[in-house]
Amino acid sequence: MSGIDHLIQSDRQFRLQLTSYLSDLVLERRLNLLREVLSRRTRYITVVLEDLYQPQNASAALRSCECLGIQDVHIIENRNSFNVNPEVDMGASKWLTIKKYSGNKSITQEALQTLRSSGYRIVATSPHSLGCSIRDFDTEKGKFAILFGTELSGLSEEAMSLSEEFITIPMYGFTESYNISVSVAITLYELVHRAKANPAYPLSEYEKEVVLLDWLRKSVKNCHIVEKRFVAEYNKLH
Amino acid sequence: MSGIDHLIQSDRQFRLQLTSYLSDLVLERRLNLLREVLSRRTRYITVVLEDLYQPQNASAALRSCECLGIQDVHIIENRNSFNVNPEVDMGASKWLTIKKYSGNKSITQEALQTLRSSGYRIVATSPHSLGCSIRDFDTEKGKFAILFGTELSGLSEEAMSLSEEFITIPMYGFTESYNISVSVAITLYELVHRAKANPAYPLSEYEKEVVLLDWLRKSVKNCHIVEKRFVAEYNKLH
Repeated sequence: MSGIDHLIQSDRQFRLQLTSYLSDLVLERRLNLLREVLSRRTRYITVVLEDLYQPQNASAALRSCECLGIQDVHIIENRNSFNVNPEVDMGASKWLTIKKYSGNKSITQEALQTLRSSGYRIVATSPHSLGCSIRDFDTEKGKFAILFGTELSGLSEEAMSLSEEFITIPMYGFTESYNISVSVAITLYELVHRAKANPAYPLSEYEKEVVLLDWLRKSVKNCHIVEKRFVAEYNKLH
Repeated sequence: MSGIDHLIQSDRQFRLQLTSYLSDLVLERRLNLLREVLSRRTRYITVVLEDLYQPQNASAALRSCECLGIQDVHIIENRNSFNVNPEVDMGASKWLTIKKYSGNKSITQEALQTLRSSGYRIVATSPHSLGCSIRDFDTEKGKFAILFGTELSGLSEEAMSLSEEFITIPMYGFTESYNISVSVAITLYELVHRAKANPAYPLSEYEKEVVLLDWLRKSVKNCHIVEKRFVAEYNKLH
């Protein structure tokens, strides 16, 4: 075993032992719930929210992502900072892996290039019929990041020009667009349903281990103190 | 022709002539849009909102109904009064036929009995798995009214006990429920899609005539003045 392999191995060993340690501190029912939700989590679909400015919308969007099993949400703040309204969020955001990108206009480019280099298809949502209906979107061609833009003007020019695919939600009325949190929910409801049978949809075993530990840390009261105690014991033994 | 038949006939004649008069005052493009949206409107599905108290949610719910082609929304106010937030509503509610029921607890009973006697199946939505998933709900058994309850506690006991069928939206996460406007949107998105091929789905010709006139009245500037002029001319001729 090389030095690095050993490090990774021992890192994994540490994580699994800490997971087991924390698992003993939560109710069995709780642990079962964590595992059950984890089995339905995905990174095959990821969500990018660009510049939402109403905390109510931002929070409802995160809550919809959580309800529909999305693990990663990427938040781009190039003009507006993203604030959560706890009454709407209902604690949803703590179960998500949220990645924030803050800065000037070029931050959108940076975020999307990072996603593309991780193998994501970049898919813009737009109320204008630039692309295909969400009903016809091909969920099988590979994992994808869905971009949602700000309440009034939608996605930025940068985001649109960096997108490779475009989807739209069927509209039957006069109103030009759905509320942003509603757009997120309808789009995910449709695409999660069709993508979830894909073998690449669930998290990998490695990803599950990492997320489970994160969730356990959030489930155990005063976890930083508990964890300190564990580390001291672990170091004595290794 | 009996007296009543004649009255109905002349009422219809009046309506059609007024419609034609007002149609000449809007752009052709506008008129085409009205007719197009009208062709997708439905009363086969109707929505009942019981006691929503956040204007933001109420408005987003109405907007979702409009976007998805629902014509009638029944608003029950037995504890909270329903207020629209114009910034979220985006003018959606003016295209809907909104029926308000205000009063004490028994107003829910009154509203649901009115709907039932008009032939509607009464269908409660609930985050708890009392009933079937919206994916399995039978949209073909006849027209139906879908009930959505208040943000915190859901539908009232009265509403639940008067409901004959129960539906729930698939949930994959920890959060106990979707935001109310999101629930409305996902449920309608699913059920409109499946019901819209039913021959009973569109409005009848009579209903279309009435709604079109209502929409024209909202499309013509200072319509009450224009209409007064029309009535004077019409009365001279008949």
